[in-house]
Amino acid sequence: MAVNNDDVKLIGAWASPYVMRPRVALNIKSVDYEFLQEQFGSKSELLLKSNPVHKKIPVLLHNGKPICESSIIVEYIDEVWSSSPSILPSDPHNRALARFWAAYLDEKWFPNMKGVITAASEEEKNAAVDQLKEVAVEMEGAYGETSRGGDFFGGDKIGVVDIAFGSMLGSARAIQVRVGVKLLDEEKTPGLVKWAEKFSADPAVKDVLPETEKLVEFAKLLSAKFKAAAASDPLRR
Amino acid sequence: MAVNNDDVKLIGAWASPYVMRPRVALNIKSVDYEFLQEQFGSKSELLLKSNPVHKKIPVLLHNGKPICESSIIVEYIDEVWSSSPSILPSDPHNRALARFWAAYLDEKWFPNMKGVITAASEEEKNAAVDQLKEVAVEMEGAYGETSRGGDFFGGDKIGVVDIAFGSMLGSARAIQVRVGVKLLDEEKTPGLVKWAEKFSADPAVKDVLPETEKLVEFAKLLSAKFKAAAASDPLRR
Repeated sequence: MAVNNDDVKLIGAWASPYVMRPRVALNIKSVDYEFLQEQFGSKSELLLKSNPVHKKIPVLLHNGKPICESSIIVEYIDEVWSSSPSILPSDPHNRALARFWAAYLDEKWFPNMKGVITAASEEEKNAAVDQLKEVAVEMEGAYGETSRGGDFFGGDKIGVVDIAFGSMLGSARAIQVRVGVKLLDEEKTPGLVKWAEKFSADPAVKDVLPETEKLVEFAKLLSAKFKAAAASDPLRR
Repeated sequence: MAVNNDDVKLIGAWASPYVMRPRVALNIKSVDYEFLQEQFGSKSELLLKSNPVHKKIPVLLHNGKPICESSIIVEYIDEVWSSSPSILPSDPHNRALARFWAAYLDEKWFPNMKGVITAASEEEKNAAVDQLKEVAVEMEGAYGETSRGGDFFGGDKIGVVDIAFGSMLGSARAIQVRVGVKLLDEEKTPGLVKWAEKFSADPAVKDVLPETEKLVEFAKLLSAKFKAAAASDPLRR
């Protein structure tokens, strides 16, 4: 079901958690879009022209105008297609709280997840895993406070915190397979275990959440690339 | 002139660029507030209770409810006191662009400014200065594109990018005095030189922009603190 006659394109890559965010947001709003897959290890002319500052995916092209940075794109989608289900809460205090947790995840979850995959030693890897477990416990608390009996952060519909966190579930599962560490578990984060199931099964999510096996293979590629880069970097210890 | 009967408090510190952001936003909206000054080197009980996750200033207390993170607080102020001059543009694409540049400054300007002050060597310091000069040139381009003949980013009124960037002008001037490096100059960033004057002289800004001499003294304190911390950190090279 499409609600727009606009020209909507998304420059991205299937494995990227950041790219998954606008995809889920567009699905929630029932906006049809064309997905432009970037190739691993290179950047298209269109990407370089559309995001000359950061040269990073995702980039949303809305009637030819580029919008960059995943969290900014998600807010843009919510503002432009405003009549469909809301992604941000309407109350300013709840909005601020949702933005707080989304920013917290960007700062604390993703860098440590990358840290697990690219760690140069067991010590580095374990430190990143410990950090992730702490963040998970913090997020369990936030889920308890904001879900108010609903399935999701903020209530009974998928919102901005679910999108920010849920987009990283695929990578979290890949880490579980590859490193043997369960980042969400029944003992310490029972709410999040249930939440992850609900989120992954949602119609707006299930077709864009990458398969774990494919991500495990992809993580091997990434890890090799980082190790090669580290080996040729004289400043790296 | 006050437009509210609300109880508004801001936990902060006079020297912090991040704290200056909500102060300017509250001034733009003519909101009276009580400023709660934190002491350097310690954290009050109220701060720890109000921002238990990051334990950082600024925190806005609005009728007792805490809102954390400077950019989130600025958007909150714009949403709650919505009838006064707007801080974010109303058009979604311009909003996304303004958020993009504000996020860019957080990512690229502040860490390098801190890098100059806390550098362990001349080499480290020069690298940070070079980065800042690159960012300044990028921002000069953004100013040219978005000011459209007005004095500020986005037009003729102070908006979110002005607040994000302008709050760091005091520290930029302190660096100029301390390190002898001009981060904005007539040759490479003539638009920003003019912009910095206009911003600093604005009624919403001038009383909360810290004096350069005081910041220079404060930077000495900060630098000594970081050097002491580095000396006792066995992982630091």
